[in-house]
Amino acid sequence: MTLRLIHDVDTAQDDAFALLIGMRHPNSNVEAVTVNYGNVNFDQMVENTLYTIEVAGFGGKIPVYEGCRLPLIAPFDDSSYVHGVDGFGGANFPKAKQRPESENAVAALIRLINENPGEFTIIAQAPLTNLACAVAADRSIAGKVKDLFIMGGTNNAVGNVTAAAEANFWHDPEAAKIVLNAGFPVTLVTWDLTMTQGRFNEAQLRQIDALDTPQSRFFTKANRASVEYVKKTHGVEGSTHPDSIAAAIAVEPAIVKKATDYYVDIETHGSIAQGYMLVDAVRRSGHEPNARVVEEIDQELFFQTMLKVLS
Amino acid sequence: MTLRLIHDVDTAQDDAFALLIGMRHPNSNVEAVTVNYGNVNFDQMVENTLYTIEVAGFGGKIPVYEGCRLPLIAPFDDSSYVHGVDGFGGANFPKAKQRPESENAVAALIRLINENPGEFTIIAQAPLTNLACAVAADRSIAGKVKDLFIMGGTNNAVGNVTAAAEANFWHDPEAAKIVLNAGFPVTLVTWDLTMTQGRFNEAQLRQIDALDTPQSRFFTKANRASVEYVKKTHGVEGSTHPDSIAAAIAVEPAIVKKATDYYVDIETHGSIAQGYMLVDAVRRSGHEPNARVVEEIDQELFFQTMLKVLS
Amino acid sequence: MTLRLIHDVDTAQDDAFALLIGMRHPNSNVEAVTVNYGNVNFDQMVENTLYTIEVAGFGGKIPVYEGCRLPLIAPFDDSSYVHGVDGFGGANFPKAKQRPESENAVAALIRLINENPGEFTIIAQAPLTNLACAVAADRSIAGKVKDLFIMGGTNNAVGNVTAAAEANFWHDPEAAKIVLNAGFPVTLVTWDLTMTQGRFNEAQLRQIDALDTPQSRFFTKANRASVEYVKKTHGVEGSTHPDSIAAAIAVEPAIVKKATDYYVDIETHGSIAQGYMLVDAVRRSGHEPNARVVEEIDQELFFQTMLKVLS
Amino acid sequence: MTLRLIHDVDTAQDDAFALLIGMRHPNSNVEAVTVNYGNVNFDQMVENTLYTIEVAGFGGKIPVYEGCRLPLIAPFDDSSYVHGVDGFGGANFPKAKQRPESENAVAALIRLINENPGEFTIIAQAPLTNLACAVAADRSIAGKVKDLFIMGGTNNAVGNVTAAAEANFWHDPEAAKIVLNAGFPVTLVTWDLTMTQGRFNEAQLRQIDALDTPQSRFFTKANRASVEYVKKTHGVEGSTHPDSIAAAIAVEPAIVKKATDYYVDIETHGSIAQGYMLVDAVRRSGHEPNARVVEEIDQELFFQTMLKVLS
Ligand SMILES: [Ca+2]
Ligand SMILES: [Ca+2]
Ligand SMILES: [Ca+2]
Ligand SMILES: [Ca+2]
Repeated sequence: MTLRLIHDVDTAQDDAFALLIGMRHPNSNVEAVTVNYGNVNFDQMVENTLYTIEVAGFGGKIPVYEGCRLPLIAPFDDSSYVHGVDGFGGANFPKAKQRPESENAVAALIRLINENPGEFTIIAQAPLTNLACAVAADRSIAGKVKDLFIMGGTNNAVGNVTAAAEANFWHDPEAAKIVLNAGFPVTLVTWDLTMTQGRFNEAQLRQIDALDTPQSRFFTKANRASVEYVKKTHGVEGSTHPDSIAAAIAVEPAIVKKATDYYVDIETHGSIAQGYMLVDAVRRSGHEPNARVVEEIDQELFFQTMLKVLS
Repeated sequence: MTLRLIHDVDTAQDDAFALLIGMRHPNSNVEAVTVNYGNVNFDQMVENTLYTIEVAGFGGKIPVYEGCRLPLIAPFDDSSYVHGVDGFGGANFPKAKQRPESENAVAALIRLINENPGEFTIIAQAPLTNLACAVAADRSIAGKVKDLFIMGGTNNAVGNVTAAAEANFWHDPEAAKIVLNAGFPVTLVTWDLTMTQGRFNEAQLRQIDALDTPQSRFFTKANRASVEYVKKTHGVEGSTHPDSIAAAIAVEPAIVKKATDYYVDIETHGSIAQGYMLVDAVRRSGHEPNARVVEEIDQELFFQTMLKVLS
Repeated sequence: MTLRLIHDVDTAQDDAFALLIGMRHPNSNVEAVTVNYGNVNFDQMVENTLYTIEVAGFGGKIPVYEGCRLPLIAPFDDSSYVHGVDGFGGANFPKAKQRPESENAVAALIRLINENPGEFTIIAQAPLTNLACAVAADRSIAGKVKDLFIMGGTNNAVGNVTAAAEANFWHDPEAAKIVLNAGFPVTLVTWDLTMTQGRFNEAQLRQIDALDTPQSRFFTKANRASVEYVKKTHGVEGSTHPDSIAAAIAVEPAIVKKATDYYVDIETHGSIAQGYMLVDAVRRSGHEPNARVVEEIDQELFFQTMLKVLS
Repeated sequence: MTLRLIHDVDTAQDDAFALLIGMRHPNSNVEAVTVNYGNVNFDQMVENTLYTIEVAGFGGKIPVYEGCRLPLIAPFDDSSYVHGVDGFGGANFPKAKQRPESENAVAALIRLINENPGEFTIIAQAPLTNLACAVAADRSIAGKVKDLFIMGGTNNAVGNVTAAAEANFWHDPEAAKIVLNAGFPVTLVTWDLTMTQGRFNEAQLRQIDALDTPQSRFFTKANRASVEYVKKTHGVEGSTHPDSIAAAIAVEPAIVKKATDYYVDIETHGSIAQGYMLVDAVRRSGHEPNARVVEEIDQELFFQTMLKVLS
């Protein structure tokens, strides 16, 4: 049975690759993409999304909805310093023909999920503001989603924006808290999993480049700035693929080798731990688990999944 | 020029009277009503809203949209203890013929305001969750609203749910913070203004009763529980009409005798002051005013406005 | 029976006058003064304290202990902008002969109260850090103090440092919370009481000046900057005497015309209401009263009390 | 040069062993012990401390001062569930002859450090309330301490009381924040270091038992409840020795194989991360390091150090 996907994105490099997985993997179709603020300038991310759809050969076939341009409450600066001004490392891709829909992303999420109860799998690759607004407006959608894969947070490990917090949840802690506590069937891909198991090394990046397809050429070009940033900032070789893991485990569940159900929650009142995700690994909170946290992946199968969609 | 109104409500007694003002005052038409959780059971409030529309003679003519059933983050219990289980003091009114729309209230707010930029005046009579979701999803609507009248908060005075906070803002501090900082043209009617200048005394209530119209009979019946609660809890005679003031000053601006522009903001991290509204009367915050706070009203004109719509 | 007083001070103008009341009123003796950071430079405040003791004729007879130079956690800037760099409006008084003790103020408070259980009345005229450290170190002292008069907070009214908070509690909210919840027999003199009932008008200031005693000359000189600041900032004539009220009602209880027992607490987690004092006038907290809040004073008797100690 | 030690303790099992290290290791003398609330009933911990001193052969020679019986602000329940009611697993040891001093622990810390500037090394094995009060009362003592070894917090790893927080810092986050930011020369032994490298396995515990000295018999008896608790709760064999590591690295610095300077701070406003220690391993805070965090120890040398003091 083919997965019906909605991607919620802030399209810079890895968001685009996650979209490629959703669009081009045989197990899934992407039926809508909702854009949330995040990595770079909002309008640029809309263009990046439309261009990625075009590269994948789906131009004009997958509606793109524009959503939240700011966090609920937190102040906001985008992360262009990580991804280059255009989110694709200055690749300067051409403008796609497809234009975004006029319906708001939050309204679209509410409508689509209600019209197709139990059908959609959502890949949440950005701060969770679109999803938070949607589920706050209509609490029933949490129970009408088949699966919600979220890239965000850390599992009792060091963060990236601060030692306490990962970027997606740090940008909008209130939204993350709303979504994680709303009753969605959540699977979490955390930042530390990405750092330890979600990287492609240089040999793998060369293997991708050698495919020499439109998709692989797009990958190589778009990925360049990220490789440099990760090397400089985190001192590691290769590139990190947090969003792609989230998409890949949705379409290829065997990638997950270990996942544990935990109670998770987000710090929204923090002075220094704002956006911190508590993963109750010590079972002291008294709360039942509300998320499945991926703790180990089959890295080779993940890479093969990427190769497949880029071929 | 006739005002085009949207009421955002949690319909118990005074919400209904505010709706009557909007619907029946010659200066205004109500074009939509959005329902937010608040005073009593959500579905009951939808019924209360539909019934109020019917009583006013507009049954089937004003669409009612169902919105947020819970605050963004705060835990929630309704305020049935104030308003009786049905929000009308157990009046047991019949069920209206009109049914709510299928479109979600948040989606409707985004759509209506975008389709009619600069046109709508909104009367916000409930916790601000619907409006917060709408403006978070589409930041542009703040600049496309003609006026936003909000009942909520206190102006450096004691609250009602706690000493620090008034009910509407206490129920969803995050939503209140979002809305007050979104750039809407806000006019605030605070709880302390209601307590000092927004009450009808027993003579006035008898005068209303003596009108003996369908609307006045509805008023008297629906108002009963509130009179008793206010007497018992706040030790004051008569009934309080916070939402009605907000509606009345929208349709009859001369009711406002004094209003001051202040910077206002909401405490969302409080341990004991959660939901507190800061009204920067000492001008120490360094922020420009973002709200017009009503500080004195013409009580007689307010009462005459109510009499007019009940006649 | 003569009151045995300890003053906890941050000696600028009004602190000095409060000390004069304690030292020179026939109902009281001052046995110790503990200095806390606050109004101006710490060492200057120690000098101000010593000089005030000398002016009052008690040089060498009342030990002065140096305590906390910073709040527990909050960052700190002193309030020289209110009081002039020296806290006495640049009066440039000579240096007193008496020097401070070597024992720390917190250690001294613990020792003195334990050695004299049930004996001391404390007049707390500064941020509450000294007292907080003392009672945290030895919880038993709360029950060994006869009375604790505190100048701080607001009673459901606008503050001075921010709209939410009064200076003494704003400087160290954690300390204020510790002290108010420690079980001391607390009487509170709030900022709003000071503003409405604790000012001397210009005629009264002239009457003080006309006394022409060393104390009245000191008063006039030291008070000058405060008069100008209050006029400029709060737009009111005369000078405000928060600390003096606290001292005056200790030595002359008839000054209090109305006081009510309330549960009070301090906001220590606030984003905008940091240092706010909740005064539970609506009795919604479920907590028993822990402070007597002065709500009305006999202004003439207060002035006469000041005249007496300056004569 | 012999280290001059002050231990700040909440004496249950491992606190006692840490005291044994301080007292009996040839590199150190213990000159004072200050008792802070924590593991079990306060008076019991005073007795445990006095008994431990007696067992070590120092009865009557090391003054014991009683300090804080409650956290600054946080509510408090002791941890008897971990350590047995008496903190020694119900060992029912006899009462020591030595009695505590009358001087308060906070006053004693201020006095001792000021009288011996640059001399004392402090081993902080309990919630940091005593030290926080002392340094808040006299900020200068932070610069007059030779070294401050603290057991507390986690280094980007899961906690014990909650997933976010370790017990000592969770009990009094405000105190921990005060001490870590006061300018002391801090070395931190974190909970995760204890769990991974600070345990004695069953063979080691048998080796200790086989020493058959008064100290080893005391160790075995007092340690019993802890072994059982750790097995049940954390699912690990052997016993954990957080406080002993802190004492051991003070007297035997070679035990530290890796330590890194980080900026650390404590969450005091948290809704779910209260007491969390941020260890800025990603260097994103912009703050200079304020603590040396031990990241790897020589486990065999640690064990040999314990064997030595028990022999
Ligand atoms: Ca992303
Ligand atoms: Ca209402
Ligand atoms: Ca003062
Ligand atoms: Ca300990």
